[in-house]
Amino acid sequence: MPTVFEMTRPEQEALFEETKKQYEELKRLGLKLDMSRGKPGLDQLALSDEMLNMYIDPSETKVDGVEARNYGELMGLPACRRLFADLLGVRYEQVFIGGSASLELMYNVIAKAHTHGLLHSPEKWAKLDHVKFICPAPGYDRHFTICETFGMEMITVPLLDDGPDMDMVEELVKDPCVKGMWCVPKYSNPDGVIYSGEVISRIANLKPAAPDFLLMWDNAYCVHEFDGPFLPFVNILDACEKAGNPDMVFEFASTSKITFPGAGVSCFCCSEANMAYMKKLWNAQIISYDKLNQLRHVKFFGSAAGVHEHMKKHAAVLKPKFDIVLDTLESEIAPLGIADWHKPKGGYFVSLNTMEGCAKRVHALCKEAGVVMTGAGATFPYKCDPKDRNLRIAPSFPPCEELAQAMQVLCIAIKLAALEKVLG
Amino acid sequence: MPTVFEMTRPEQEALFEETKKQYEELKRLGLKLDMSRGKPGLDQLALSDEMLNMYIDPSETKVDGVEARNYGELMGLPACRRLFADLLGVRYEQVFIGGSASLELMYNVIAKAHTHGLLHSPEKWAKLDHVKFICPAPGYDRHFTICETFGMEMITVPLLDDGPDMDMVEELVKDPCVKGMWCVPKYSNPDGVIYSGEVISRIANLKPAAPDFLLMWDNAYCVHEFDGPFLPFVNILDACEKAGNPDMVFEFASTSKITFPGAGVSCFCCSEANMAYMKKLWNAQIISYDKLNQLRHVKFFGSAAGVHEHMKKHAAVLKPKFDIVLDTLESEIAPLGIADWHKPKGGYFVSLNTMEGCAKRVHALCKEAGVVMTGAGATFPYKCDPKDRNLRIAPSFPPCEELAQAMQVLCIAIKLAALEKVLG
Repeated sequence: MPTVFEMTRPEQEALFEETKKQYEELKRLGLKLDMSRGKPGLDQLALSDEMLNMYIDPSETKVDGVEARNYGELMGLPACRRLFADLLGVRYEQVFIGGSASLELMYNVIAKAHTHGLLHSPEKWAKLDHVKFICPAPGYDRHFTICETFGMEMITVPLLDDGPDMDMVEELVKDPCVKGMWCVPKYSNPDGVIYSGEVISRIANLKPAAPDFLLMWDNAYCVHEFDGPFLPFVNILDACEKAGNPDMVFEFASTSKITFPGAGVSCFCCSEANMAYMKKLWNAQIISYDKLNQLRHVKFFGSAAGVHEHMKKHAAVLKPKFDIVLDTLESEIAPLGIADWHKPKGGYFVSLNTMEGCAKRVHALCKEAGVVMTGAGATFPYKCDPKDRNLRIAPSFPPCEELAQAMQVLCIAIKLAALEKVLG
Repeated sequence: MPTVFEMTRPEQEALFEETKKQYEELKRLGLKLDMSRGKPGLDQLALSDEMLNMYIDPSETKVDGVEARNYGELMGLPACRRLFADLLGVRYEQVFIGGSASLELMYNVIAKAHTHGLLHSPEKWAKLDHVKFICPAPGYDRHFTICETFGMEMITVPLLDDGPDMDMVEELVKDPCVKGMWCVPKYSNPDGVIYSGEVISRIANLKPAAPDFLLMWDNAYCVHEFDGPFLPFVNILDACEKAGNPDMVFEFASTSKITFPGAGVSCFCCSEANMAYMKKLWNAQIISYDKLNQLRHVKFFGSAAGVHEHMKKHAAVLKPKFDIVLDTLESEIAPLGIADWHKPKGGYFVSLNTMEGCAKRVHALCKEAGVVMTGAGATFPYKCDPKDRNLRIAPSFPPCEELAQAMQVLCIAIKLAALEKVLG
């Protein structure tokens, strides 16, 4: 089968007419499908239902001398801190357990940089005229929203197959106004890229002009393989310490996509010096987070090994969904040469690149046919995809049959938009 | 029995020697007692243990169309918002459910005033050279810590028997740098004072020069009677609305002292206009708070009436503890005329005023004898009690026998400090 670009114009026109007819037929079905957010599906939620009804004897709520039902222990239940330390390979002293959302911890660290300054800040960021932040893109829209809400200037850096374009990053950090950088080092959102060892080493060894450069290491998908075995990851705190940048990095993780999204446990990890500084600031904000939920998680998993076991159940649910996405794209789109995509083995997304200038059109066509996708451009700072080609597919939430239908709609929309473009 | 001031010097000296001997004897007991924080006791925690092991069927987690196990619904589970709306007498649309701590919500509102400004702020507070905040004192140390961490200047206003000194407050708000005021309107921390209807009306009708004046209405003890029936309270949102100040107030409440401290549910309430503004800002911070914990609370209480029923159980535990405190003070201290105190019917504290210049000494004497009290001065801005006389007694945590012992120590310390002072 020839690609669209190898076809004669009459062939292109014929394919356009045929695709248009298919599209109109699909529209008549009145579908209502959602592939917009990385929400776990109901079958994934069910994997943790045991925690919903967990029996906790009141005699068990005092662990390591800490009563989980009462105030106290700002940094979290020691047993829960140990669990995350094991999972992330960091030291116990480097772990702070927060509420149910790592996003809120990220927001808080950046908020404190503005209101108080970080450990090595010459001045609180709120007093500065320009704060710039490096945003590898495609990336996570909620990271960009945090930058926007604080009025930080986002500098887009291409996310390559092995991580951010480090030549560019190394140049950018020479500007003292460049105060930090977002990273999703494993199964990046949305590309599912894993940063290479070399890229991570270059990141850890950055020599930023800003003494308070803040590496936001969002390890959201650290144990989230859905295809193949668990891949160990670099301990970024250790790497930064060895590179002489011990206080440059904050790492974030949560159980949002392990147990219950929005009702899990989150954490941040940083150097002991950063921790002492942050603990003092955080003490003004809260007495302690929900230690009963921390206790539930400790009981549910037992150990880091327990988490890995649990993730295999998620993989069994997610793999068929990603197969539907990737197989459909492979059979419907690949031969036509009108789009490309990554084939991730973990994380929550498939990042699709249409022909230039087609992403918004594809999004609109999908919407018209009842399929909601993440907004085109959402994966770029200021929602501005310079080539208008990236779309984020989130296969986790819909059941398989709905997902298959949604993918049919998406593929037809991709074809239609491409042919409209080619035919002019 | 004569008061200390009616005694002859030899009588005073004899009482001093006798008290000193009693103190040395108590010291030899090697006590280790804690009356420092308003932590519920273990017997109170047990009242909510049913929630610890609550059976929630996975089929029940979708309420009002919202799946509590998944992301979504920033303002909280509708059923939980209804519960708080009923409890506080406000409109459903005015309720935002947060995480496990209302303190964190308070911190966040003030943080957002600094980083973004409030709805009617001409400028974000971080850009201002002077931000002043009215702090009725004695008051809650953690309110003052929030002021301190943001570098706001605290202006102490005396807390009278019916609330803050409103003559002073009405003068102060003429200064446009005065941006807000803390209030604990019912069973104030630590005095247990209930603001009178007249004071509340004067607060609602304030005409602050600052267009973004922020009334921080911490209704922490709204249903927390331990002695006598529930006392209805004024709906401050309504009062401010009627006074033409609809956007001036944020009200806060939580179940920290209803179910589990640090693992309860918190909320803030404000005008619909404030809510629309805050919702947009909050959306950058978190996707949604822990709706499973919200669901547990809804199931546990059923309704606002269920909360009131539950509070009677707390009252039954707390009343004997407050009786120990008040009876001991009445029998040991009242006749000597060397201290006074409020006799609250709700809340968590007894606020004790020693002779001037004696609070720190009493605190130190208690500590030396193994009894930890809240730091002297903690109830004032900058930990500075100008007359060095206020001490906060927190009777809830220790079991009754320990509390009785601790009160013996405290009373002896009060006597000793007073006699040291009188004898010069």
